[in-house]
Amino acid sequence: MPTITLTTDFGTSDWFVGAMKGVILEINPQASLVDITHAITPGDIRGATFALASSYCFFKKGAVHVAVVDPGVGSSRKGLAVQTERYYFVGPDNGVLSLALARERIKAIHLLETESFFHRPVSQTFHGRDIFGPVAAHLSRGLPVKRLGPATETFIKLTWPKPRVGPDTIEGEIIHVDHFGNAITNVDSSLLARFDKHPLNVFRGRRRLCTVEKFYQVVPARATVAVVGSTGFLEVAINGGNAAKALRLSVGTPISARVRQ
Amino acid sequence: MPTITLTTDFGTSDWFVGAMKGVILEINPQASLVDITHAITPGDIRGATFALASSYCFFKKGAVHVAVVDPGVGSSRKGLAVQTERYYFVGPDNGVLSLALARERIKAIHLLETESFFHRPVSQTFHGRDIFGPVAAHLSRGLPVKRLGPATETFIKLTWPKPRVGPDTIEGEIIHVDHFGNAITNVDSSLLARFDKHPLNVFRGRRRLCTVEKFYQVVPARATVAVVGSTGFLEVAINGGNAAKALRLSVGTPISARVRQ
Amino acid sequence: MPTITLTTDFGTSDWFVGAMKGVILEINPQASLVDITHAITPGDIRGATFALASSYCFFKKGAVHVAVVDPGVGSSRKGLAVQTERYYFVGPDNGVLSLALARERIKAIHLLETESFFHRPVSQTFHGRDIFGPVAAHLSRGLPVKRLGPATETFIKLTWPKPRVGPDTIEGEIIHVDHFGNAITNVDSSLLARFDKHPLNVFRGRRRLCTVEKFYQVVPARATVAVVGSTGFLEVAINGGNAAKALRLSVGTPISARVRQ
Repeated sequence: MPTITLTTDFGTSDWFVGAMKGVILEINPQASLVDITHAITPGDIRGATFALASSYCFFKKGAVHVAVVDPGVGSSRKGLAVQTERYYFVGPDNGVLSLALARERIKAIHLLETESFFHRPVSQTFHGRDIFGPVAAHLSRGLPVKRLGPATETFIKLTWPKPRVGPDTIEGEIIHVDHFGNAITNVDSSLLARFDKHPLNVFRGRRRLCTVEKFYQVVPARATVAVVGSTGFLEVAINGGNAAKALRLSVGTPISARVRQ
Repeated sequence: MPTITLTTDFGTSDWFVGAMKGVILEINPQASLVDITHAITPGDIRGATFALASSYCFFKKGAVHVAVVDPGVGSSRKGLAVQTERYYFVGPDNGVLSLALARERIKAIHLLETESFFHRPVSQTFHGRDIFGPVAAHLSRGLPVKRLGPATETFIKLTWPKPRVGPDTIEGEIIHVDHFGNAITNVDSSLLARFDKHPLNVFRGRRRLCTVEKFYQVVPARATVAVVGSTGFLEVAINGGNAAKALRLSVGTPISARVRQ
Repeated sequence: MPTITLTTDFGTSDWFVGAMKGVILEINPQASLVDITHAITPGDIRGATFALASSYCFFKKGAVHVAVVDPGVGSSRKGLAVQTERYYFVGPDNGVLSLALARERIKAIHLLETESFFHRPVSQTFHGRDIFGPVAAHLSRGLPVKRLGPATETFIKLTWPKPRVGPDTIEGEIIHVDHFGNAITNVDSSLLARFDKHPLNVFRGRRRLCTVEKFYQVVPARATVAVVGSTGFLEVAINGGNAAKALRLSVGTPISARVRQ
């Protein structure tokens, strides 16, 4: 039962995801399909690459990860299949795969040009159904990635904001607000480990928000707290509440962690 | 691994889809279940029949397609199972299957009357779980459709708006607004093919909206464009935007395509 | 193909459900995963236990039901695996399993303490992925429940509002509002059976809302009606409309059924 995961901005109110799954299952009826999410904001490549990077590594070896946020569909942008040590990744060459690939050992990158592995006729607007889905299905059946098209060395990489680290501070920013209203920063646990013996405060600009703790319930109900969340990044939360709404945090908001004086 | 697809207005905030799947998997644990969508507006038979018609043909031969938008549940409306050359269709006899069936070669139509294939007791309000789901599960196991109940010749067909074609114009209307805000018309690619050599403008009433192009990115970001979408129908889009919101297009809005003078 | 069901408040806009499924499928690639819902209001243990109790019994024997609404994640609250005559239940010990368990014959209750069955490292914020999901996967492969940790006799039970029954009346309250706006009460069909020969009115406080009927369409379109719904409870509906919105019914609203004089 090979697994194929799907990360898209298709939403679930139309038939798009269903049609894509139909094409996949026609090619590989044994495939086990897992939705990562289809609720990426339309065209939000950055949101999709973070969702994929936060989930792909929890799947078993051989899984095929498909990400389709594709505002350039129908234009000259390329399609990619990438083989890494443990997985395959399929999607448009617009950066949507790049955050996950930055963490993987890449073995081969191929352009999607062999039309016999597509669902034909190929529409001008829905390559998830007509190209990326069927290619993923063929890979899940064992098709060698090199049969999909010519090898390439390069692909588009999103720039990703990096925290700045000083002797007593880490300056980062919000990179995702989740369903619970937790505001996830780009400050990862390895950076925090440098200050391991010292209690930390978290600031938005000059305003102190909270302390860094081990888990939400260290603080009372409705209090603000920062914890290392399940993706390994520091996140600002309200115990039992929605931090992003209450504190007006959104993607790009600067957040810093500072050693308590 | 036989496939069963589900198109409903049940939403995903309750347990309805889950309970229906439980009943199906108890009867056929091998079934591969694919959600087309559960976000049809409650009672919107027209929306459901379009979603089904836009997706069913992408599944492999033998798939069982279940559509349950069923405002008449518990009343005297009939339940149907329809065998076509490639598929089975199951749902209430209220038109929800009719747009897909209009494109298929029908081999047999049977009423759902054999109660031994139902989940009992049958509730008065949830035939997706108690009748349509279990019937689909039995069909996916190979049950002959004739065992479900008496044959019938007729079923309820939705009237569907047809475009009017003149020497230089096609007059149609919006039949669906998708998740991206693309406004899908009832003008299909075969109609447009008649004007193949001539560039076309698209109008809403007397207001010119855009030209017909091959794909979204022929026009600049945020510009309006009409393309033949992935369902084979002309759709009005904004490159990187939401056309339905920006241009106030909704189901029923008249749209015409005219040869440029 | 063992079935594992998932009931959570994770939403579907992030990667949380996908990551949890990845961990499950790595342990048991044969598992058939069914979403009950992921749209429980964050932290709403009561909503989750009702969704689970309304759906679990439609699955085949041996199914593993996982419910994760877990505001106490990371604190000292326990994790549970419960074996009943037909199923397994897995989740935090905060009442989320309790309404389903009240209807089952319990055979064994064990705390989740054997870390070798967890996904490690265990995060402080996402035990669905790191504990409950993997434990469910192991159970679905046949792991004896006793291997998960020490047996216990007790678990946290939610108090659930009970209707008061008089000679001519049943006084209950709304316990759930569903996707269609139907307002489900805690008055079940067995209570109504006591008044079987007598027509009933339904009141909100002193205001008469409607009569109790067999199905929605007994009343005209847009009229209010009460029926025994698919969960076996009396629910207030509007034929073709949204009763909760129109009549301002929400969880906790008192509703009574009275024999018509």
